[in-house]
Amino acid sequence: MTRIAHIPVPQFKRIVIVGAGFAGLKLARSLFNSGYQVVIIDKNNYHQFQPLFYQVATAGLEPSAISFPLRILFQKQKRFHFRIAELLEVHPESKIITTSIGELEYDYLAIAAGGVTNFFGNKNIENQAFTMKSVSDAILIRNTILGNYEKALNQTDPEDMAAYLNMVIVGGGPTGVEMAGALAEMKKYILPKDYPELDFDLMKIHLFEASGNLLGGMSEKSGSKAQEYLKKLDVDVRLHTQVTDASPGKVMLKDGTVHKTHTLIWAAGVKAITINGIPVTSIGHGGRILVDEYNRVQELKDVFVLGDNCLIQNETTPKGHPQVAQVAIQQAKNLAKNLINEKTGQSWQKFVYKDKGSLATIGHNLAVADLPGMHFYGFPAWVLWSAVHLMSIIGVKNRFFIMWDWIWNYFSYNQTLRLMIRPKIKKEPAE
Amino acid sequence: MTRIAHIPVPQFKRIVIVGAGFAGLKLARSLFNSGYQVVIIDKNNYHQFQPLFYQVATAGLEPSAISFPLRILFQKQKRFHFRIAELLEVHPESKIITTSIGELEYDYLAIAAGGVTNFFGNKNIENQAFTMKSVSDAILIRNTILGNYEKALNQTDPEDMAAYLNMVIVGGGPTGVEMAGALAEMKKYILPKDYPELDFDLMKIHLFEASGNLLGGMSEKSGSKAQEYLKKLDVDVRLHTQVTDASPGKVMLKDGTVHKTHTLIWAAGVKAITINGIPVTSIGHGGRILVDEYNRVQELKDVFVLGDNCLIQNETTPKGHPQVAQVAIQQAKNLAKNLINEKTGQSWQKFVYKDKGSLATIGHNLAVADLPGMHFYGFPAWVLWSAVHLMSIIGVKNRFFIMWDWIWNYFSYNQTLRLMIRPKIKKEPAE
Repeated sequence: MTRIAHIPVPQFKRIVIVGAGFAGLKLARSLFNSGYQVVIIDKNNYHQFQPLFYQVATAGLEPSAISFPLRILFQKQKRFHFRIAELLEVHPESKIITTSIGELEYDYLAIAAGGVTNFFGNKNIENQAFTMKSVSDAILIRNTILGNYEKALNQTDPEDMAAYLNMVIVGGGPTGVEMAGALAEMKKYILPKDYPELDFDLMKIHLFEASGNLLGGMSEKSGSKAQEYLKKLDVDVRLHTQVTDASPGKVMLKDGTVHKTHTLIWAAGVKAITINGIPVTSIGHGGRILVDEYNRVQELKDVFVLGDNCLIQNETTPKGHPQVAQVAIQQAKNLAKNLINEKTGQSWQKFVYKDKGSLATIGHNLAVADLPGMHFYGFPAWVLWSAVHLMSIIGVKNRFFIMWDWIWNYFSYNQTLRLMIRPKIKKEPAE
Repeated sequence: MTRIAHIPVPQFKRIVIVGAGFAGLKLARSLFNSGYQVVIIDKNNYHQFQPLFYQVATAGLEPSAISFPLRILFQKQKRFHFRIAELLEVHPESKIITTSIGELEYDYLAIAAGGVTNFFGNKNIENQAFTMKSVSDAILIRNTILGNYEKALNQTDPEDMAAYLNMVIVGGGPTGVEMAGALAEMKKYILPKDYPELDFDLMKIHLFEASGNLLGGMSEKSGSKAQEYLKKLDVDVRLHTQVTDASPGKVMLKDGTVHKTHTLIWAAGVKAITINGIPVTSIGHGGRILVDEYNRVQELKDVFVLGDNCLIQNETTPKGHPQVAQVAIQQAKNLAKNLINEKTGQSWQKFVYKDKGSLATIGHNLAVADLPGMHFYGFPAWVLWSAVHLMSIIGVKNRFFIMWDWIWNYFSYNQTLRLMIRPKIKKEPAE
């Protein structure tokens, strides 16, 4: 395999970062002007702001508002090199990675490739379900649900019509809850105006959760508040409910019930991306790679794993940290500090997770917030949720556009992005 | 074939409009509260603002900024029905159309299906070239050119690298000129910052025009001014130059020259969409349907054709009107007035085209304007161009977003939309 082109020999040392999600991007930005050469690879040329995928899927936000072109961020860093590439394998013995565009030597390797949807081996569900793990996924959901409303209009049998209107969301974590809330508000405020010919009493939005409460990572009170808000919005929330199978137009539950729907959204599980070359003995539950408190793969030299991809198991976190943005960001900050310390001969610091709290939003003025030592709900939680997400978004322009979009949608209850812009495909021009 | 569902029997009469481009949309909006039942069909659920496709293709504007969801426009019109559908055939004898979702009777039929790219029968060029006739086309170009810069980075041979950087634009009308200008500004201001590893001296932007001047529909002075501006931006403009063939990575000219490029953009011709059921004797040049001065197909009863789709040939317009937005909009207004007059028994008015002038922009402060009785260039023309386009865009929010984008880009020379958001495809869930 040839070497990746146009990357010079580093003056000091080279850090290769795989993945530009929350962890990878934070690590890269924390290494600005550090003297290291930094090579970042990602499948896409943009960073994706995962917490707002559901708003793209429900036509509330533009895909570009939550996607940030990586090259703009690195423009002023002369020692930074970005490439669109996929990691094929790590060769820890020779300190080389092979990728879709060639191979490259590293001094330090930081893997932050994140997770993918976990269907727990069920191929039928995988074939029928829509996922929420990328901006492209979100656009596909947007186009599909808008397309299904249009198809509903072509049905004369009420049952067929209902199958195009019904939504089944599986998984009562933040993604499932936020998606159900946004769809319910769309049903309540927008669809009857857009489709006066359709009978929206036929439409049911179901949220199925296998465990006994919603928002498992948050307090019980927040879970039950979220459930209360969703019921207010006429969502059929069912706990202790497992989806076991799916076929075209149908979703089957464990108790034998069959729901007719063309829209099955699966937000019920994540598994870490598989990295070739990592020894099997370093793989923990959910496919996560076992690392020590420095995020280092203990069996390997100079290989680090961050965020959803990794697992730190000790007395305080026997099951590892939750797979959330805050953990990823804090691990990246800690690793960056350690690598900079290494350069100056200072000692390494262990990673300690500081839980800043959790937030989830259900709809207009409806949100839940667990902060250290306090919980609150409704309008104040919703304002906090909005402020936190706005501040976390990269780029002044993106923040401004999202704020404007939110203000517009808040008062008008009428998102203007209900576009089915279908992808046009052209065969790849031959080389 | 079954009837299109959920469209009631009209209280008065039904007008069916095919296509929601400039002509179809103007006609529909001019028939608000007219008492007619109006059924609009289009392939997409949005109106597309064609004059700014090139800015989407060059990452200057969001696709949604120039796409407007049709259902929002018709929300308050109880007698309006919109359907996503394609026209299959007109049956003038029974006053029925057949479409992809069923058949429908009409009292009046207005066809405004527009045009498609004309490759003049050259299949090789059709296979290699990118077109600029829809928002989806523009997104494909954006993704392709950004992808080609990334691929250029993986080349070690300068000639291979150049092939990914070079652009060939064919056709010196407004689309070709505006596209060439925007790409040249991207090359000058953005690419060297985004890709410090690439040698942009290798990159050539070519604009080939078969005739003797650019902007054929405008004054000769404007054409030569545009040429001067493009040369200033280092675009290789060649007149009297015909592209005769293409193969993967190559474009061939009539004089035997071969240009190596992976980006061939074809803006050299339009032909009217073919409408099944229109008698051959009513088809004029470029596939346009011959109509009288009321936009009526003379051989048929109550069938009208508007915009790029039609051809009014008489002493004043022996070759027909230019295929531009102004003609389409004015014809639609005139037809709406006539249909409303018909209702009250008033007489019909002939269509008379009022040329309000033409504008084209090449880059920052570089534009040309032909107004009745005056021509001007440079900054004032550029301001006028911006104002006219902003006012023509539908929707307060879209106008605001575009204005903000333009102001941002004007001062920063740095569009923030350089995203290759790849379409995700899921097989159509079976019915």
